[in-house]
Amino acid sequence: MKILIANISLLPSTESLFDSHDPYTNTRHSSTWDIGIAGDVIEFVRPHTTVPMGAGGRERTPGSEAGEYDKVILGDGRLALPGLVNAHTHLGMTLLRGYGDDLPLMQWLEEKIWPIEAELSADDVYWASLLAIGEMFKAGVTTCGDMYFHMDATAKAIAESGMRASLSRGLQDIGGSGKQGLQEAAALCRNWHNSCRGRVTVMLGPHAPYTCSPEFLRQTFDKAQRLGIPLHIHVAETETEIQEAADNYKTTPLGLLEELGVLDGPVTAAHAVYFSPDDIQLALERDVRIIHCPGSNMKLGSGIAPLPDMLEAGLKIGLGTDSAASNNTLNLWEEMRLSSLIHKAENRNAKVVPAETSLTMATKGGADALHLNKVGKILPGWAADLILVDNKGLHWQPTSDLEASVVYAGGAQDVNLTMAAGRVVYEGGRLTTIDEDRLVYQVQKCAQRLGLC
Amino acid sequence: MKILIANISLLPSTESLFDSHDPYTNTRHSSTWDIGIAGDVIEFVRPHTTVPMGAGGRERTPGSEAGEYDKVILGDGRLALPGLVNAHTHLGMTLLRGYGDDLPLMQWLEEKIWPIEAELSADDVYWASLLAIGEMFKAGVTTCGDMYFHMDATAKAIAESGMRASLSRGLQDIGGSGKQGLQEAAALCRNWHNSCRGRVTVMLGPHAPYTCSPEFLRQTFDKAQRLGIPLHIHVAETETEIQEAADNYKTTPLGLLEELGVLDGPVTAAHAVYFSPDDIQLALERDVRIIHCPGSNMKLGSGIAPLPDMLEAGLKIGLGTDSAASNNTLNLWEEMRLSSLIHKAENRNAKVVPAETSLTMATKGGADALHLNKVGKILPGWAADLILVDNKGLHWQPTSDLEASVVYAGGAQDVNLTMAAGRVVYEGGRLTTIDEDRLVYQVQKCAQRLGLC
Repeated sequence: MKILIANISLLPSTESLFDSHDPYTNTRHSSTWDIGIAGDVIEFVRPHTTVPMGAGGRERTPGSEAGEYDKVILGDGRLALPGLVNAHTHLGMTLLRGYGDDLPLMQWLEEKIWPIEAELSADDVYWASLLAIGEMFKAGVTTCGDMYFHMDATAKAIAESGMRASLSRGLQDIGGSGKQGLQEAAALCRNWHNSCRGRVTVMLGPHAPYTCSPEFLRQTFDKAQRLGIPLHIHVAETETEIQEAADNYKTTPLGLLEELGVLDGPVTAAHAVYFSPDDIQLALERDVRIIHCPGSNMKLGSGIAPLPDMLEAGLKIGLGTDSAASNNTLNLWEEMRLSSLIHKAENRNAKVVPAETSLTMATKGGADALHLNKVGKILPGWAADLILVDNKGLHWQPTSDLEASVVYAGGAQDVNLTMAAGRVVYEGGRLTTIDEDRLVYQVQKCAQRLGLC
Repeated sequence: MKILIANISLLPSTESLFDSHDPYTNTRHSSTWDIGIAGDVIEFVRPHTTVPMGAGGRERTPGSEAGEYDKVILGDGRLALPGLVNAHTHLGMTLLRGYGDDLPLMQWLEEKIWPIEAELSADDVYWASLLAIGEMFKAGVTTCGDMYFHMDATAKAIAESGMRASLSRGLQDIGGSGKQGLQEAAALCRNWHNSCRGRVTVMLGPHAPYTCSPEFLRQTFDKAQRLGIPLHIHVAETETEIQEAADNYKTTPLGLLEELGVLDGPVTAAHAVYFSPDDIQLALERDVRIIHCPGSNMKLGSGIAPLPDMLEAGLKIGLGTDSAASNNTLNLWEEMRLSSLIHKAENRNAKVVPAETSLTMATKGGADALHLNKVGKILPGWAADLILVDNKGLHWQPTSDLEASVVYAGGAQDVNLTMAAGRVVYEGGRLTTIDEDRLVYQVQKCAQRLGLC
């Protein structure tokens, strides 16, 4: 399938990567651009060119004749951005949106989340995942990094919908389900890793240093090494976790992973709210990838991560919403905005985490965090994951700094086309790979059975 | 003009105020409601009732016959909320959206904002104000509290558009323009206070204790007393301001206002980022109304207000976006969400500022902050300022807590009808009182002349 996206605008930082010479008019012509897609990859980015049609007076885009492209998308000057990467999610929890809001973490988990999670079937997780994917496509998210259980159901929803994903079966041995979890995780890897032409990958997901024993963490590391996949793990999310690691292991949660040898392989650490300066240095030396989840960390009262320090150290950092139960959306635009705003407030410094940094974290940074190559930029040879954004609404007017407007003024509502792996999954207000009415019907049914609405 | 809004849902806290008995079916029937509007006031709220039409099989709403209502709005189960109140804005700055982003306050003011403000004409302020109003109507904001200069131009835009507003001419005597400002403020009061059937009111707007001398603050207080209007003033926005007040006056900015006698009259204090416990107690004793502006305070790196303490003390508190130059939108949904999230993070406590508190601040709290009576609730006899929200989108599914979904999952994009003072100003994606194409054309022209885009 060959697709031409004609007449779109790009961020200045993207434009600067391309030759803006227009061969037709022999002038520099950089105001709008054309993007060619071949299969699931971007084939070219070049200055937008039009050729007069003659008598009719209309213009046409060269190459848009019948036969040359299977589909032509007229951009009308809309802004093209790389698809957003929501690097830390629990899609199966989307049925629990707003369930037990405004409660502290442990009370929320013990009284609300854990009892209802015990009731969740594979069918529930399938519909919850599809609901999450539909919401994310509408918000311009094309990749997610997910960790939960009943992951075959989530993988099925991911495969059907066209989303790019890195999937992990959440693992813990506190409670005794360690062995079965590891078996399921190995099966997930066998069945889904590098499936769907590489669109679906798998990581191993030990939940956290406080829910996995040291012995079990070593086991998951060995298993990950044998399977040749990275680890995705929650690290240093709350003060309690830091205190427990200090009491039990005389180190930090990340220090414990280092002592156990876990950092000898590729590791992705979600949250990192309480990373010490030593943790940051260690993460840098061991190339630990970070996923910053400001909305969830704020909503659960967990705290504020040392993001400016992690950025300054040069860590590779993506953004995640965490689950809809602690956010309550999967809208990465909100995380972009929060990741710029909260650290300015916390550090009493308007310069930290400028808009372009948040935008990078929301795209290329997230792909790095999930160990995905050639994802998160609009470049020839890279994944055809991109979105078209209507930046003409009143809340964008006037635009004196495009990147700032994207992060501080733009939002999910401005996305009006989403392409994941070369496939248009959302266009003209409609999901193209998901039957939305059927989805809502099934979600309501699941939620009612579970007593959630 | 009589309007019937038929078949809408309400928040549980609003529903509980009304008798849900359906006289037609003689049953308790509280799932949806009808709202009657007479002129600019809500006339009734009652359970939704339908009467079979007979042969055609369609239902009709009693009272929707020709003649009884001038307009009937079919709610289709959408959620009705009170119109949002954006209690602290500088509409004339909307042309400066994104201008000088990610800079600290003083550098931002001195290098970017003040030089360009010196260039702003009344015409610029008119179009900037209309742009702001259009953006706010689309986001469900029906009232604003504005402070700037060229306020006649803003008042004209407010009057034409149908928005409810409390307007203040910003005043300072550092720089010597004190006397002229006071004259303009008095003229604004004469010309606009209680105009447009009470939809437009005026406050006196001394900018801040650090830009007004004590003598000038006393003068503005005397003037306000003579005019019979409250004061709207920035107080305790930054640490620098606290330090200067300590150095110059040996007290806090609010303490200085008390010493000068300014708190003997009604006062609205915007920001209150650095209110001490004594300030909070003083504000309570003197009934100082507060406007919390979390987005602006975060973006400028000013800090985080002690909102939980102010709420616990029982202060009357509204929300404001501040200007589009430091936010960068006038979208009060973002302030609702931020006002819940940031204080949970700052206090490491998920219980503080629950969703319903943010929702109250965004509606009735804002009206209190602007000294407006019978604004901000859906109740008979109160202002017909309300919005219809489409709460059926995927990001609302499922809804186990409606108030939490409004604050944490909903957004400006979900507003699809806005009524201010009994007039539908936004419906079906279109502004009804503003020519949007003309507006954007003029805004672009102003912005280009000023070198802003």
